[in-house]
Amino acid sequence: MRERIEIRGSGFCPFCYNNESKTPPEVMAYRPDSSARDTPGWTLRVVPNKFPALRIEGTLNRQGEGLYDKMEGIGAHEVIIETPDHQKTLATLPPQVIEDVLWAFRDRIVDLKKDRRFKYILIFKNHGDAAGASLEHTHSQLIALPVVPKRVLEELEGAAEYYRYKERCIFCDIILQEAQSGVRMVAENEAFVAIQPFAPRFPFETWLIPKAHQSAFEESMTPEYAKFAVILKDILLRLDHVLEKPAYNYVIHTSPLPETSNDYYHWHMEIMPKLTKMAGFEWGTGFYINPTPPEEAARFLRETAVPA
Amino acid sequence: MRERIEIRGSGFCPFCYNNESKTPPEVMAYRPDSSARDTPGWTLRVVPNKFPALRIEGTLNRQGEGLYDKMEGIGAHEVIIETPDHQKTLATLPPQVIEDVLWAFRDRIVDLKKDRRFKYILIFKNHGDAAGASLEHTHSQLIALPVVPKRVLEELEGAAEYYRYKERCIFCDIILQEAQSGVRMVAENEAFVAIQPFAPRFPFETWLIPKAHQSAFEESMTPEYAKFAVILKDILLRLDHVLEKPAYNYVIHTSPLPETSNDYYHWHMEIMPKLTKMAGFEWGTGFYINPTPPEEAARFLRETAVPA
Repeated sequence: MRERIEIRGSGFCPFCYNNESKTPPEVMAYRPDSSARDTPGWTLRVVPNKFPALRIEGTLNRQGEGLYDKMEGIGAHEVIIETPDHQKTLATLPPQVIEDVLWAFRDRIVDLKKDRRFKYILIFKNHGDAAGASLEHTHSQLIALPVVPKRVLEELEGAAEYYRYKERCIFCDIILQEAQSGVRMVAENEAFVAIQPFAPRFPFETWLIPKAHQSAFEESMTPEYAKFAVILKDILLRLDHVLEKPAYNYVIHTSPLPETSNDYYHWHMEIMPKLTKMAGFEWGTGFYINPTPPEEAARFLRETAVPA
Repeated sequence: MRERIEIRGSGFCPFCYNNESKTPPEVMAYRPDSSARDTPGWTLRVVPNKFPALRIEGTLNRQGEGLYDKMEGIGAHEVIIETPDHQKTLATLPPQVIEDVLWAFRDRIVDLKKDRRFKYILIFKNHGDAAGASLEHTHSQLIALPVVPKRVLEELEGAAEYYRYKERCIFCDIILQEAQSGVRMVAENEAFVAIQPFAPRFPFETWLIPKAHQSAFEESMTPEYAKFAVILKDILLRLDHVLEKPAYNYVIHTSPLPETSNDYYHWHMEIMPKLTKMAGFEWGTGFYINPTPPEEAARFLRETAVPA
């Protein structure tokens, strides 16, 4: 049985007001009341992950061990606490607050880009136990990596190869084809489309793509953050409604550092509801069996009445 | 909380004696008593999957849809019912029965190889709900595919590139290095080693590798099936003991069709206990965070007393 992700709110939460000392000291916070750091008053707060996957201090120290290669786990691992309100999810926050979350992503990327050891900055969210979340208080995560991730590299190389053939961005072409056919389109506004991708790995996998070509998330034009917030909220509410509050992950795909501006790659967000399990077939092949055609998923999501 | 995989045995089971008519007609069975097909008396039975991921009839019908590509899902999807005994798991079957399971894998591969549409035959197992099993009666699965899977291709290309540099098989080199250092070695017999790989994706991920170079599973020498059965049982019992009957997947990695004999690739089995969840980081990067060093996992598994 699939679990419905409801906020239980029971017990101690390190992401709530007055527990600021239970996280590492904050990296950044939005404090409209100019309150002191690591005290209540913030509307959004970024802290280092208490159990980081990578550590900021040290050198990579690349070396061999016989035929194997290894290096230190250097990087940054931060948590973006999206609101002090424990009862909210990203879907139920006001659009202005979601926009703040997006600005926080941008601000942290711009800051971490200055560290030349980093080759990629990954923004993601684990929502619900089945999606790997260990705390229910709504938050996103950022990991700065000293290497370009395998999956990002594959997508970049695919996009670059397409560009060599066509001299066009493949994501710009996808947007055009999807707008013309309409069958996998879920929603759009002036600046973004939300589609079910062709041959999605997962049921109800949804991509949010800026309409104007832009290779890096953090280089988006100022008005686009507000437009992105609106469509992101809309899609999360539709998924909550159609799939009964599913666990989900999202990941922002953007260009690697340091040269983030190019003509062939196009940043976007991939939202993956956790409805199916990875099993032997998926591990053995890298292919995914998806029982839900994207055209059907798109229709369900389009036809859902979402409260304004 | 992680679930302990126990056989419940409640309710109707299509893989038990007298329910042979509830599966599609058998493809093959081992029947020492020469009983009639699709009746009781078998010791091992292979049937088409009732809900196949791919279908055997038809043509690939490759075509474009705008900038996308598609083709029909042509292939074979079979279930290897390892024993009529609903109470057993692969770990608790006698070695002779496990050897029969391995011969059944071989027999089905040899038969399906004759169909020139197939480029790869994948053997895998989903054990336990968390690993994607929908029926608890112990079984493995086979999928014949019209394309070489992405993950297999990556491993093959990596192995071929290593061979071009070194003129040696990378798996043969791994066996040698692991035997010399010993820190990731779990068990061995005359024909196989069981190791924790360097930089494993998952805690207690275990690889079983034949010591003699062999690129394709189905081309193993006759005595090797018995040796493989013994080490496979030994490792599954150790995992059951140390991890308290975990859900797991295994996958056999072998050479693609039709040319399965080569000097650079080396068939092996990868066993992946399901202890961790894929989350945003893994989806976004293709990298895996593994909290358990393989050297520690190897020591735990080595030092476990396994009943004879």
